[in-house]
Amino acid sequence: MSLITPRTLKGFRDLMPAQARRRSDLVRALEDVFRSHGYGPLETPAIELAEILTGKGGEDTDKELFAWTDKGGRDVALRFDLTVPLARFVAQHQGQLIFPFRRYAMGPVWRGERPQRGRFREFWQCDADIIGPISTAADAEIVLVLLDAYASLGVGDEVTLRVNDRRVLNGLLEQVGVEVDIVPVLRALDKREKQGDAVVREGLEAAGLATDAAATLLDATVCRDSNDATLDALEATVGTSEVGRAGVAALREVLTLVAAAGGRADRIRIDPGIARGLDYYTGIVFEAQYDALPEIGSVGSGGRYDDLAGLYTKTSLPGVGCSVGIDRLIAALEAKDEAPSAAAAQVMVAHPDQERLGEAFAVAGAVRSAGYSVEVFPHTRKHDKQMRYADRHGIAVAVTLDQDGHFFAKRLADGASTKAADIQTLLGWLEAHARG
Amino acid sequence: MSLITPRTLKGFRDLMPAQARRRSDLVRALEDVFRSHGYGPLETPAIELAEILTGKGGEDTDKELFAWTDKGGRDVALRFDLTVPLARFVAQHQGQLIFPFRRYAMGPVWRGERPQRGRFREFWQCDADIIGPISTAADAEIVLVLLDAYASLGVGDEVTLRVNDRRVLNGLLEQVGVEVDIVPVLRALDKREKQGDAVVREGLEAAGLATDAAATLLDATVCRDSNDATLDALEATVGTSEVGRAGVAALREVLTLVAAAGGRADRIRIDPGIARGLDYYTGIVFEAQYDALPEIGSVGSGGRYDDLAGLYTKTSLPGVGCSVGIDRLIAALEAKDEAPSAAAAQVMVAHPDQERLGEAFAVAGAVRSAGYSVEVFPHTRKHDKQMRYADRHGIAVAVTLDQDGHFFAKRLADGASTKAADIQTLLGWLEAHARG
Repeated sequence: MSLITPRTLKGFRDLMPAQARRRSDLVRALEDVFRSHGYGPLETPAIELAEILTGKGGEDTDKELFAWTDKGGRDVALRFDLTVPLARFVAQHQGQLIFPFRRYAMGPVWRGERPQRGRFREFWQCDADIIGPISTAADAEIVLVLLDAYASLGVGDEVTLRVNDRRVLNGLLEQVGVEVDIVPVLRALDKREKQGDAVVREGLEAAGLATDAAATLLDATVCRDSNDATLDALEATVGTSEVGRAGVAALREVLTLVAAAGGRADRIRIDPGIARGLDYYTGIVFEAQYDALPEIGSVGSGGRYDDLAGLYTKTSLPGVGCSVGIDRLIAALEAKDEAPSAAAAQVMVAHPDQERLGEAFAVAGAVRSAGYSVEVFPHTRKHDKQMRYADRHGIAVAVTLDQDGHFFAKRLADGASTKAADIQTLLGWLEAHARG
Repeated sequence: MSLITPRTLKGFRDLMPAQARRRSDLVRALEDVFRSHGYGPLETPAIELAEILTGKGGEDTDKELFAWTDKGGRDVALRFDLTVPLARFVAQHQGQLIFPFRRYAMGPVWRGERPQRGRFREFWQCDADIIGPISTAADAEIVLVLLDAYASLGVGDEVTLRVNDRRVLNGLLEQVGVEVDIVPVLRALDKREKQGDAVVREGLEAAGLATDAAATLLDATVCRDSNDATLDALEATVGTSEVGRAGVAALREVLTLVAAAGGRADRIRIDPGIARGLDYYTGIVFEAQYDALPEIGSVGSGGRYDDLAGLYTKTSLPGVGCSVGIDRLIAALEAKDEAPSAAAAQVMVAHPDQERLGEAFAVAGAVRSAGYSVEVFPHTRKHDKQMRYADRHGIAVAVTLDQDGHFFAKRLADGASTKAADIQTLLGWLEAHARG
């Protein structure tokens, strides 16, 4: 029989062991943060009826949907995000849920995008949402969760969260005195960072704003030296607009509440230019950037929506949510430092021969019980072969059973070593040489 | 616009919050066990080229495959297990991997089975494999990992692991002196527990065994009162068969090594009737059962294979692996006790009004920093409404900000309460009343 060439589908990839371990570590750290704020996991199927998914993410996502007709003749598709399944879930089970309903979801989603560097057709999303309350407390909570997440992932000092409130933009439009469809205005503003003021001005005029109104809006949405300066300028420009004043007040309160909870309020930058072109956002909106690598794009985003599940239920389900761009953060970490070790074990026990395997298993069991990850070299090989494996694999400490019944432990990075007469002595040495 | 009925596809399901939390907790506990033995995660795509998957699991899995032609005209399919993707991965990346290669994988797989009670078309598999060594040490390690897994999932006393070695069966066949295809023999033996000796005898005779040979085989594969008795009887029956003696010796060593490492060797039952009808197993084979509910089927299984990836590479890749039946274990736990609480938070902070929200966030932040999961009631409601939510949701302790700046903490299960003047006093009370 001829061999089948082992390969992945175009646009898909395997994670190699060190990469997979990094994602797994980050996902777990993130999960701990979500849970520490009272968010619980939610699991919905990867496959949904196509009619649940089509038309929910705009034309592009429809085109990019992995969709087919199953053997029972049903049109089905793979989820392209975790928000549409959440909407379907909450609409379907609303009678059994307790509101406010806080959930997180983490897992792969699929989009048939044109493959390009760093973008794949299967990627992970990590979302947290709170459904029910319309309150600045919930807005602040989500911002706090996201900032706590970056801190916990080790990038607390390197991520800036740009925050705005749609109501501020509504207020500004009210004050410039024009009634235009807000969506083209948001889309135009979103282009500022990448394409510059001239392009935005054109877009605003195309959206129906007069030249001076466009100029006022552009000037008002500048990000100033401090959050206070930005907020004071916004307050002055929105003037008596009620919705505008509410937006500014909410932004001030978010800053206060995040700081009160001990969150990284210093990483928030109030930025009235953040518009998030998606038309379902109605209140707070935010985008996180990894400061050293802005070109990798947003490493997190979110905002408040008035109506999560209007396509499936007449019940109004407002909420606020955030999404952590875990795959982009991994790319950022990879650009920053070396890849982590491929070894899952901290300690390897080498053994001289088949007869002393029981002893090796006993030492490994004792060290494992003390909280280390431990492997026994799994067959009989010369000692230098066992050590070469440990070294290549990235093991931190190799423990060798000596002929005299003692244990010889060696830290491979620097050769620090000891000879221990019993397990307790060995564990004491490991405590000082193999933790962390 | 008319509403779309929110529903899942036939054969699929949502996990409700309490169920999802239980699965998430178990998966994490399992992951910790795998990692503690030096296994690292591996992530391969959910979608593979159809030719990678078809013909790998027998006729049934081909029929049950979720397969379609993608927009680029490629025949693709969703993985139906985690072993075939492992085989493809190892064959594809063998040059970059360090052997012995230990990996775990946990995630959903898809099979278009006829939906029935407790069986779904999307379910989780949790596998650990070690590829490379042909050694009893590796066999014992996998058995130890599996037993440690059950202990860590809280069912260490309730699961029995039935263990056999294919070589024992080969030795027995050698001794009864017939040369027959072993696969029909294995399939016949596997039916013993469900269908009884008469059916097995018929199957053995249909496989080509004479009446007395079938009787000898049936007698030799009885599970006796103790492992020692079973092994002694097997040793006597395999006589001089080299392969048979190797199988018996390996089973003895697995028992010794598992015990040496501090594993639950007492939960192993050497059972020469365990055949695992899959023809790729060549050495140790095992199946775990949840003793109180044998009818739910195996809650874990595995064995040794000589050649993982023969369809994709000429390199011989032997290994041994186990799979934990996490969804069946969840069903067993659900049958045993009440569903866990839906609340992800242990502590809720109630607050009297909008003005004191900052104080509520500050208390929540301090309690969270002490290691509790904490939520702030996210909008302003009457105190009894906030408490009713906490109660329905399964919160353990509610902390209320009193008018005098003190904290009133109440354990909802029994009403135990305290009034604390400061955070430190509150944390001391929580330590005694809300841990665990």
